[in-house]
Amino acid sequence: MINDASKSSDVDVQALTALLDGEYAEIRDLVRTNLSTHASVLEEAEELGIDAFRERVRELTVELAATGQTGMGFPKEYGGGGDIGASIAAFETLAYGDLSLLVKVGVQFGLFGGAILHLGTERHHRAHLPDLITGKLMGCFAMTETGHGSNVQALGTVATYDTASREFVITTHGDAARKDYIGNAARHAELAVVFAQLEVDGRSEGVHAFVVPIRVDGAPAPGVRIEDAGRKMGLNGVDNGRLWFDGVRVPREALLNRFADVTPDGAYESPIENPGRRFFTMLGTLVQGRVSVGGGAINAAKVALAIATKYAVRRRQFEAASDGEEQLLLDYGMHQRRLLPLLARTYALHFAQDVVRTQLHEVFSGDQDDEQARRELEARAAGTKALGTWHATRTIQECREACGGAGYLAVNRFAALKADSDVFTTFEGDNHVLLQLVAKGLLTNYAHEFEDLDQLGMVRFVTGQAVETVIERTSVHKLLERVRDLLPGGDEWDQEAGLLDRDYQLAMLRFREEHMLAGLARRLKRGLDEKGDPGVVFSHVQDHVISVARAHVERLVLEAFVDKLRTLPDGGDDGNDGNDDGNKVALGLLCDLFALSTIESDRAWFMEHGRLTVQRSKTISREINNLCRKIRPLAVDLVDAWGIPSAMLRSPDLVG
Amino acid sequence: MINDASKSSDVDVQALTALLDGEYAEIRDLVRTNLSTHASVLEEAEELGIDAFRERVRELTVELAATGQTGMGFPKEYGGGGDIGASIAAFETLAYGDLSLLVKVGVQFGLFGGAILHLGTERHHRAHLPDLITGKLMGCFAMTETGHGSNVQALGTVATYDTASREFVITTHGDAARKDYIGNAARHAELAVVFAQLEVDGRSEGVHAFVVPIRVDGAPAPGVRIEDAGRKMGLNGVDNGRLWFDGVRVPREALLNRFADVTPDGAYESPIENPGRRFFTMLGTLVQGRVSVGGGAINAAKVALAIATKYAVRRRQFEAASDGEEQLLLDYGMHQRRLLPLLARTYALHFAQDVVRTQLHEVFSGDQDDEQARRELEARAAGTKALGTWHATRTIQECREACGGAGYLAVNRFAALKADSDVFTTFEGDNHVLLQLVAKGLLTNYAHEFEDLDQLGMVRFVTGQAVETVIERTSVHKLLERVRDLLPGGDEWDQEAGLLDRDYQLAMLRFREEHMLAGLARRLKRGLDEKGDPGVVFSHVQDHVISVARAHVERLVLEAFVDKLRTLPDGGDDGNDGNDDGNKVALGLLCDLFALSTIESDRAWFMEHGRLTVQRSKTISREINNLCRKIRPLAVDLVDAWGIPSAMLRSPDLVG
Repeated sequence: MINDASKSSDVDVQALTALLDGEYAEIRDLVRTNLSTHASVLEEAEELGIDAFRERVRELTVELAATGQTGMGFPKEYGGGGDIGASIAAFETLAYGDLSLLVKVGVQFGLFGGAILHLGTERHHRAHLPDLITGKLMGCFAMTETGHGSNVQALGTVATYDTASREFVITTHGDAARKDYIGNAARHAELAVVFAQLEVDGRSEGVHAFVVPIRVDGAPAPGVRIEDAGRKMGLNGVDNGRLWFDGVRVPREALLNRFADVTPDGAYESPIENPGRRFFTMLGTLVQGRVSVGGGAINAAKVALAIATKYAVRRRQFEAASDGEEQLLLDYGMHQRRLLPLLARTYALHFAQDVVRTQLHEVFSGDQDDEQARRELEARAAGTKALGTWHATRTIQECREACGGAGYLAVNRFAALKADSDVFTTFEGDNHVLLQLVAKGLLTNYAHEFEDLDQLGMVRFVTGQAVETVIERTSVHKLLERVRDLLPGGDEWDQEAGLLDRDYQLAMLRFREEHMLAGLARRLKRGLDEKGDPGVVFSHVQDHVISVARAHVERLVLEAFVDKLRTLPDGGDDGNDGNDDGNKVALGLLCDLFALSTIESDRAWFMEHGRLTVQRSKTISREINNLCRKIRPLAVDLVDAWGIPSAMLRSPDLVG
Repeated sequence: MINDASKSSDVDVQALTALLDGEYAEIRDLVRTNLSTHASVLEEAEELGIDAFRERVRELTVELAATGQTGMGFPKEYGGGGDIGASIAAFETLAYGDLSLLVKVGVQFGLFGGAILHLGTERHHRAHLPDLITGKLMGCFAMTETGHGSNVQALGTVATYDTASREFVITTHGDAARKDYIGNAARHAELAVVFAQLEVDGRSEGVHAFVVPIRVDGAPAPGVRIEDAGRKMGLNGVDNGRLWFDGVRVPREALLNRFADVTPDGAYESPIENPGRRFFTMLGTLVQGRVSVGGGAINAAKVALAIATKYAVRRRQFEAASDGEEQLLLDYGMHQRRLLPLLARTYALHFAQDVVRTQLHEVFSGDQDDEQARRELEARAAGTKALGTWHATRTIQECREACGGAGYLAVNRFAALKADSDVFTTFEGDNHVLLQLVAKGLLTNYAHEFEDLDQLGMVRFVTGQAVETVIERTSVHKLLERVRDLLPGGDEWDQEAGLLDRDYQLAMLRFREEHMLAGLARRLKRGLDEKGDPGVVFSHVQDHVISVARAHVERLVLEAFVDKLRTLPDGGDDGNDGNDDGNKVALGLLCDLFALSTIESDRAWFMEHGRLTVQRSKTISREINNLCRKIRPLAVDLVDAWGIPSAMLRSPDLVG
């Protein structure tokens, strides 16, 4: 038995689970119970054919709805739970199980239900919420078209107002404008929320949403053509489909009119004058989809890590010492390096998800709903979704490989986890496009440097959107001062601070973000000044755009982890179990490992920009190995604390 | 239309295909024809149930065998093609199509057939080769056990020689010793080559291989228990199974006796005295499996890249300039950065695969078969397999994401590519274990520094194997001289050499390898000197072990690319089509991009070790962007040159 790190502390698993579950322990436990009750769906996903599995997933969706698990986000008066944060927590927890069921729930209650709730007004709520909350009324969210997924402002479907009949006439112009990949459309949806270019009196008013019946008694509604999108890499319990509309007429009241309306006699009205801003206000109400997917992805990664960690403390391979016993996988330094930084990052993302979920709850409950709070929420949701879903893809892959050939058997979960979660990186916003959205928000801080920005359309290339407002005006030449402010002990401080000094870790990630952002702003400005072709200028800086957004989000993630640690009582315990301290120690190790491995992955950048000496860079790598050895004896407790129902792990031969 | 790089040269696609196909153009074209003929298998993989698809794959295997495609590696006298290199080339090309069929062919002709051919003697050849070459006789390769996949020297199955009956008695001791994940075992194999610990006269002689009937008229043979391994992440056209043996008796002649035999009266005989060396000699004959998988993985990556590249020159998203037209994906800098370095690395790996295939051919045809050639081949095969399969996993994932939601539909190939190729990283040798094998070979160069190495069992931890011989003795203190030798212009030369100077690129990768190797040797020696627990010492250096192996293989890959470029005629053309020059220019760009992006990914290491200044590091990143812009107009030609039959791309909506 090889174990050269003494166990530095004990983890109180139950207390840690309570900490992680936070204020939503109750709803999470309800979901855990439901997951265990319906655990057979994991096998059914393999065994049933597509048709039967789709029906099974629909059936389960309705059963879950009956427990109240899926309706938390809707107003109580219509049968919901009236708690948006809880609805996200429920969704996150559901991601421990079959992901077709997760996505079906997301489509029905998050996208379809969310659109009715947030884009519609009372008439739509009264008409549809009660039945959609129970799952009696199934619907879909028909935004994406074959030709436009990311750039949805350019959708091709058109809704023309016909004043004579007081109806909208919805038409698909060409196959590029067909609605595509629409969940729930191929089989189950009766209604669709259709996004289309609104035309009133010959004038285009931009994209708006309409409630359109697409299926009556199981058959396509008149004028609607439906095609099955067919088999997918995963999520085959969700019936994705394509929709074409051929002059489909819906009454004037079908317009989801919270942000704009058309009067009976054909006058367009909206409290938001700027069409771009109007559109993004509408889109913004759908931010909960991104928060949900990000949280779901992080929890899918937990399932993979739990299996791989448990396997690594059972599986032996190769003799390590002369006693003839083979060594446990997790006692190999490389195996620790493969799994434990991912474990640390998962914890970090968990706490970052807590922050974005809380912000979402505050904004949508009206606790703190102003322009700036919304924009911060949207940026944070976009960034956490991008990093969370990429993390899931990478973690699931690493864990599969860390389980060898056994990880390739379907019974061991990785097959489904990998295939089902794959699309998370590109749906609900392609990750690269989302990071550009994040970068755009950051660039607005520098916007007065680019007075002719909108004119040249420069920032449109960052996100396909116009910059509308400037939150904070900071000029580029102030950068150096700001950087100095980041280093609490002066300009040289970072060369001497302890690697495990939390202020050092934060200062490093803040410096990187600020420096990258200023560099990007300079490059854009130079491109403008030199009258470069805007497309070419953007193309040349796009890797910087993505980098700065990533740096920004990683800084937010570290801050979330550090903030969480700071809320924990210091030094002692709460007098009940004597273990609180152990949990704080363990979380501190994870936070250090996350911070240092984040710096390590980008250490070339830090060296290139004078914030890391060669010696210090090597010391960081050694410290990471030390941290891995310290966390190794705690690893199983740390994955157990996630409270994944054991039936969700399956893998009898791996975790046994 | 945004395109700021003028097309620097034209690619002659046909000539480039001829260059890439090389001496095996004929067999590759046969395989291409067969792939197109049986293209429907790609749909059948989705549509048929597991049982029907397994039968279909078996049927196709037999049909391919009838064309001669799969038997190239067997002697002509038994119906084979007598050309080992051609058999690998055929296998590589088959990887453009369905990968279940590929793996079924690999199991039947490579593993099972290869074991009979290379471990057996004439009696086994006469008895089995003719029927197995046609596919009439199906077999399996029963090495891996549930308890031992990587450390096969510790297998638990036992074969005891019974002198009285002149038979071997084969027994599975406990479930950990059951044969597991065995391709062809669940349904089709009649024979198994079973690896078991040979016991003769109460003495263990180590692992040997036996031909054992496991199925008679479709039912398990007496004493054999067979279980289906069930559904897998992919490759569901291959029937993987588990095998238990309960005192199964086979005649003395069932021992594959090329390297060892048991006389009728129970005397063990082998020309190779050292048991470890004997075992690894037997294993070494199976190196063609690794060469095959590596080559197959590289070609699977080509399919993904071809689809994503063709999509990226058709798909537009977001307006880039004020003319209102959306920009092609491949004109975005980030999109180029995502795809084109992978394209360059694919070309590099293609040429590296040419080298290892040629070495395999030479060794196994007896052209150059000595101890050193075999060891070089084994190390190169292990390294190319590891890097090639990881490259495939990464490339397929990136290409899927680069095709957005469309890439998630099964019809667009990524679902199958991803699921089927996933196991390549861990079968035929887990990639991490293989890289340790590579590192072990490198360490033998330093072995005299560790005179007590075997005694302490140090190097066993590198690979679970004892170091047997020392190829070349170089002491650690000579390192600096060697490094200087690597820099043709003296110690400072690398700071001034052009980034596109091939000698510079090579020197950088050589320096990295040498320096890492010396560092690893020093660390191991220090651990020994300090009498550290060997397991702990190894665990602490294991990340260095993996790094040095990766650095070594990347150097070999770059050398293969550079060597290939140097064989191309300089400056002019061959007078036929005027385009040879264009191809050389294009390959030169790819080679530069591969070299520089390899240096860039590890630029932190180069800075840490004094071989890259901050300024130069940044310049390399800029040069990579330049190279991407130069390659962008050639990208479609460069993927077309792989000659992937269009039916293999499917993806009607992506590549049109």
